[in-house]
Amino acid sequence: MDPRVREHARTIVEHSTKIEPDDDVMVRAPPVAEDLAVAVAERIGEIGASASVSLRSARANRAYLRSSDPEDFDTPDHLLAMMEETDAFVLVKGSRNTAEMSDVPTETLSAYQRVRQPLQDARMGKRWVGTQFPAPGDAQKAEMSTEEYEEFVYDAVNKDWDAQREHQQQMVEILDPADEVRIVSGETTDLTMSVEGMKTVNDYGEKNLPGGEVFTAPVPDSVEGEVLFDKPLVRHGREIEDAYLRFESGEVVDHDAAKNADLLTSVLDTDEGARRLGELGIGMNRDIDRFTYNMLFDEKMGDTVHLAVGRAIRESVPEGRPYNQSATHVDMIVDMSEDSYIEVDGEVVQRNGRFRFEDGFEG
Amino acid sequence: MDPRVREHARTIVEHSTKIEPDDDVMVRAPPVAEDLAVAVAERIGEIGASASVSLRSARANRAYLRSSDPEDFDTPDHLLAMMEETDAFVLVKGSRNTAEMSDVPTETLSAYQRVRQPLQDARMGKRWVGTQFPAPGDAQKAEMSTEEYEEFVYDAVNKDWDAQREHQQQMVEILDPADEVRIVSGETTDLTMSVEGMKTVNDYGEKNLPGGEVFTAPVPDSVEGEVLFDKPLVRHGREIEDAYLRFESGEVVDHDAAKNADLLTSVLDTDEGARRLGELGIGMNRDIDRFTYNMLFDEKMGDTVHLAVGRAIRESVPEGRPYNQSATHVDMIVDMSEDSYIEVDGEVVQRNGRFRFEDGFEG
Repeated sequence: MDPRVREHARTIVEHSTKIEPDDDVMVRAPPVAEDLAVAVAERIGEIGASASVSLRSARANRAYLRSSDPEDFDTPDHLLAMMEETDAFVLVKGSRNTAEMSDVPTETLSAYQRVRQPLQDARMGKRWVGTQFPAPGDAQKAEMSTEEYEEFVYDAVNKDWDAQREHQQQMVEILDPADEVRIVSGETTDLTMSVEGMKTVNDYGEKNLPGGEVFTAPVPDSVEGEVLFDKPLVRHGREIEDAYLRFESGEVVDHDAAKNADLLTSVLDTDEGARRLGELGIGMNRDIDRFTYNMLFDEKMGDTVHLAVGRAIRESVPEGRPYNQSATHVDMIVDMSEDSYIEVDGEVVQRNGRFRFEDGFEG
Repeated sequence: MDPRVREHARTIVEHSTKIEPDDDVMVRAPPVAEDLAVAVAERIGEIGASASVSLRSARANRAYLRSSDPEDFDTPDHLLAMMEETDAFVLVKGSRNTAEMSDVPTETLSAYQRVRQPLQDARMGKRWVGTQFPAPGDAQKAEMSTEEYEEFVYDAVNKDWDAQREHQQQMVEILDPADEVRIVSGETTDLTMSVEGMKTVNDYGEKNLPGGEVFTAPVPDSVEGEVLFDKPLVRHGREIEDAYLRFESGEVVDHDAAKNADLLTSVLDTDEGARRLGELGIGMNRDIDRFTYNMLFDEKMGDTVHLAVGRAIRESVPEGRPYNQSATHVDMIVDMSEDSYIEVDGEVVQRNGRFRFEDGFEG
């Protein structure tokens, strides 16, 4: 086995999910990532915890969804019972074909996501990590050879996460006590929002591996202005290009896209919360140096900002604060590398991708 | 997709497990059988039930078992909770390598099986089927090309199960009201047991697909005599050849094997019930015309008898009757095609593989 796979497994088990003896751990991975599932199961056994490995089949899921009537969907009680009794989850992504779900009607996918929301909620309260195996389909999507993509993935996941945490902590200290954030990029994006009273979270490879961002939750009604997401977004194997949103009092009042606008509409129509922002994230991982059409990596890039419509991430919302709820959470990215800045309480903290605390920053 | 796979899926969903709208169905299959998992999921969706497909990884399970200390094993609460809430299970066998577990210590496997016994018990109370996908590893074990093995498997599973049920019912009517059964084969096997008060079950492709046997449970203390299992038995990828057992008052008092006798010893040492018989089965499926080193098929062959040490199958034990309990259930086969007979209450009902109700029977 590739020694980088075993190193990845160690990071997952020891750093990201901190598995302890007697933990019941679920490991979900696609068949193409079986090597990583093997290495993770092995490490869990060494620790004295219990590993249940389940390889998921995108093909079987597609067949089931296409043959079903969405009106028959119901929350699967057996999976909910299982998730409530599980201590930790390892979720591995990886595709032979990233477009496997492309011919499932979007309404079916949205309905399926809605009935499975209680499963997501149950998982969110546990230790979990979402990570990536460098499968050929993902390499193809990134327009890279499989071998080059392997290097890209392992450079991003097998790194010094303590150093990354310290680097990011500088941004946490700016954003956490702040009130207003403004994001400006070219002529197309000028958005303001309040983050008052919300918690800025330092993501250094725990729930996302790779990690490499800081994020918080906008105050639901505070978002005003417009934004053009100039990095494409892949949703169920289809690309939404140049998504555009205009907000008034926190709500999307106008939207458009240059490609697959219907897909954007269906996201916004999931439920009421899908038309409001749930997350403001700032990418800070300088080891992710190219765009690979994979949100787990793209949103961590050092000169990007991402916003998610849909549910807020609970960690970023202090107890008792109102926050956005939804069955969906869809991240979209703004390129901040040129003609762009982030202002926090009236002060520029990033310009053209350089942070105030980095070399080359020009206030 | 091979149309025989879709026919197999229809048999599984409609005949074996009788899936209904709103059922929560778990489908477990190895990655090599993904086509069948796809076809089953599709059929379940059409019916309006919910399908959760989980591909299992023998490699990951092996790695986990080898790296674990068996003293750390515990019943996985999360899986037990899931199984209790599930309505039906589809369990598909199939291997790229049937010897995948061959280097896991037998004590580890036995300990693992013991802590997972409650999962088996939970499943037994539900609708379920165990079936086979014609994978290359199984074809190799059967000493057949993959294509020839595919024909063998699909001939055995995609058949007229109503006709098979009627054929077998003739044997049920002999065995169900009986008291004593005697099995004699050559100089090496002469075994008697009581089946008084037990229920003879007609297996026509419901819990096992292929089906094709009738089975009952011996009265635990009644087994006397000796038996040589002259068909080899494959256990975790290793063959036990010419297993020999001698019984007194229902208990194994002597045992041996020509090959891998230690494996037989470890089976018998699983727990107290592992030294007593839990099943007497009579193979009646004439479409299975060759031995393939696969118990699901071998035990159904028309001129064989099988006995299992370990737990009785609950269906064959009427409420309130004592029966054998154990964490294990290991079937072993006696070839009845030559110099052999089955006697029920003193009357020969099968000689040299021909039943009393078949052409060619010589009482």
